[in-house]
Amino acid sequence: MSEGVLVGILGGGQLGRMLALAGAPLGLRFICVDPGTNVPAAIAAQHIQAEYDSPQAIEALSQAEVVTYEFENVPAHAAAELLRRNVHVAPDPAALAVAQDRWVEKQCFEQLGIRTVGTVRVDSEDDLAPALEQLGSPLILKTRRAGYDGKGQRVVHSLGEAKAAHQELGAVPMIAEEFMRFTRELSILAVQSKTGERAFYPLVQNEHRNGILRTTLSPAPNTSSQLQAAAESYASSLLQHLGYVGVLALELFEKDGSLYANEFAPRVHNSGHFSIEGSATSQFENHLRAILGLPLGDTSPRAHSVMLNLIGRECPLADVLSVPDAHLHVYGKSARHARKVGHITALARDIASLEARRSQLQSFVSLSEDG
Amino acid sequence: MSEGVLVGILGGGQLGRMLALAGAPLGLRFICVDPGTNVPAAIAAQHIQAEYDSPQAIEALSQAEVVTYEFENVPAHAAAELLRRNVHVAPDPAALAVAQDRWVEKQCFEQLGIRTVGTVRVDSEDDLAPALEQLGSPLILKTRRAGYDGKGQRVVHSLGEAKAAHQELGAVPMIAEEFMRFTRELSILAVQSKTGERAFYPLVQNEHRNGILRTTLSPAPNTSSQLQAAAESYASSLLQHLGYVGVLALELFEKDGSLYANEFAPRVHNSGHFSIEGSATSQFENHLRAILGLPLGDTSPRAHSVMLNLIGRECPLADVLSVPDAHLHVYGKSARHARKVGHITALARDIASLEARRSQLQSFVSLSEDG
Repeated sequence: MSEGVLVGILGGGQLGRMLALAGAPLGLRFICVDPGTNVPAAIAAQHIQAEYDSPQAIEALSQAEVVTYEFENVPAHAAAELLRRNVHVAPDPAALAVAQDRWVEKQCFEQLGIRTVGTVRVDSEDDLAPALEQLGSPLILKTRRAGYDGKGQRVVHSLGEAKAAHQELGAVPMIAEEFMRFTRELSILAVQSKTGERAFYPLVQNEHRNGILRTTLSPAPNTSSQLQAAAESYASSLLQHLGYVGVLALELFEKDGSLYANEFAPRVHNSGHFSIEGSATSQFENHLRAILGLPLGDTSPRAHSVMLNLIGRECPLADVLSVPDAHLHVYGKSARHARKVGHITALARDIASLEARRSQLQSFVSLSEDG
Repeated sequence: MSEGVLVGILGGGQLGRMLALAGAPLGLRFICVDPGTNVPAAIAAQHIQAEYDSPQAIEALSQAEVVTYEFENVPAHAAAELLRRNVHVAPDPAALAVAQDRWVEKQCFEQLGIRTVGTVRVDSEDDLAPALEQLGSPLILKTRRAGYDGKGQRVVHSLGEAKAAHQELGAVPMIAEEFMRFTRELSILAVQSKTGERAFYPLVQNEHRNGILRTTLSPAPNTSSQLQAAAESYASSLLQHLGYVGVLALELFEKDGSLYANEFAPRVHNSGHFSIEGSATSQFENHLRAILGLPLGDTSPRAHSVMLNLIGRECPLADVLSVPDAHLHVYGKSARHARKVGHITALARDIASLEARRSQLQSFVSLSEDG
């Protein structure tokens, strides 16, 4: 067997699984570090069952040509230790540090002239009243760190509710955000190679429920080239400022024809899963191309596509596969409330066919859904 | 981790590799048996390093929901032993037996009214003179068993050459075939599920050199619906007659607007590799759907596509990936003369763009090629 280039991944979840499956045809080999057992990525990667910052993990990852991550809450000192050993880590841990702290992230947006919703820093309970005064009611309280899939946040309508939420969320450092009544949620996937080459996917439209992404439509319907250009300009600023290498997902709100940045993910992203079938090159392959300095792949859409997340538990294989041009991706995770266990992407040449496929799939998904 | 359905594969080569990579998103798990070390399929399948008919192999495969194979020269008694243990084997070993013997295969074509080139059975040297008389010169001598990629065959122009070739090929049972000056080589991929559902891919056009497939164009250019219907009708007869379950590839010659069957492969096939990107559902996924009784996937083309085999050794990753919508698949095999080590598929919306991409890729492939 020819010895392929070794790529290290911090984390062994579904994003690591899809990275490894995308890299296998290119002849890449993968090693992932994850303290869990039977992790999703193990299907196509060597799994080191260890803490991210354990000597065993660091030693194993040091063998890799490049190390990347598949979630943003990687311990900063694990990445730092790899850098100290001259292991190539992409994207740079500095980008991770920005995305790990909502206040720092918002400051970064403002510094770059990226429009975002009004935000106030909440270091203690005393900051709640001024936040309500400045941002109005309702507002959203979010912990600065460790939030995902709607965790670590509350919508509050009064100072009383704000104080209660502040307690419930652990009285940790937070931000307060203006509650924006936006028209729709969009996101853009951007990728920058270590050679500096950049590419952007068309804007996609997302729907969340209970803070969890449910559906992505690609390309986002009724999107002007101006809107696409604005999104690319925001994403470009981030890539440039962060000296970013890899795929980055920027979540946006659209309101009155303008875009407001919500947050960015310094990694491949759930709203880009459609790209496995829906784009000429998937976000997973492009992330690998980028971190290895290979030419980036074509990001143009193959067709209209819709991605539906499977939350809580899988739905029957035969039902999904009975829908034309529908593609199932299960992650090999056990069923658990509100857990992403898989997704389905369906493609169609026109919106009408796509809608028909979507509603058929939605009926199967809803039956199994519990999140 | 949820326990996925286990699929067994006899053989651990590139076809097993691509089956396992196609099945992973569906949550399938794979076990492959192959006496080799570091086999290509091991990237996404558990590898049992053992002879196909060893007790260890049989025991391991007995755990699978269904066992399939990725090459046709599987020892018949290995399959028979699995059947004796009530292990579900697909396609049925009886189909394998037909494909394993060129004379039996030709008889099968004739019995089903599938037009084929003139063939004479050559049991001994004495049959060579009558064969030349009946079929004319030149003719092709082929061993009845164990031929692939142009091995086990010789074109001969005289009785003297025929006798020499007969000796060289080991004086084993053979067939003599009319040397047809066909217009082009085509093939059709057909799939039948264990539920009886059938699907066909559009005809593709193949080019061989030195007996090895070099290029596949999908869909085959300038193909009438009558030609497609004729190919489907031939393939249907085979699926029906063999009680076939899985993907079957039928190789055809076109001459003066008519189709002549050359041979069939009772498995996923090199001329179907384009389908990973070039079709809504790949041959690999459809084979798995078929043997598991799941609904078959859409076989329609996503675009025009061209598949180029990498023979002998791989070519530089960055060169291939610089071509728009080009997709590399390496098999993790060491370089060796005339060995298939990978393939590239490029897609394009129109024939002109496809030709441009093809000639760019061809220049890289030719540089590395040695077969």
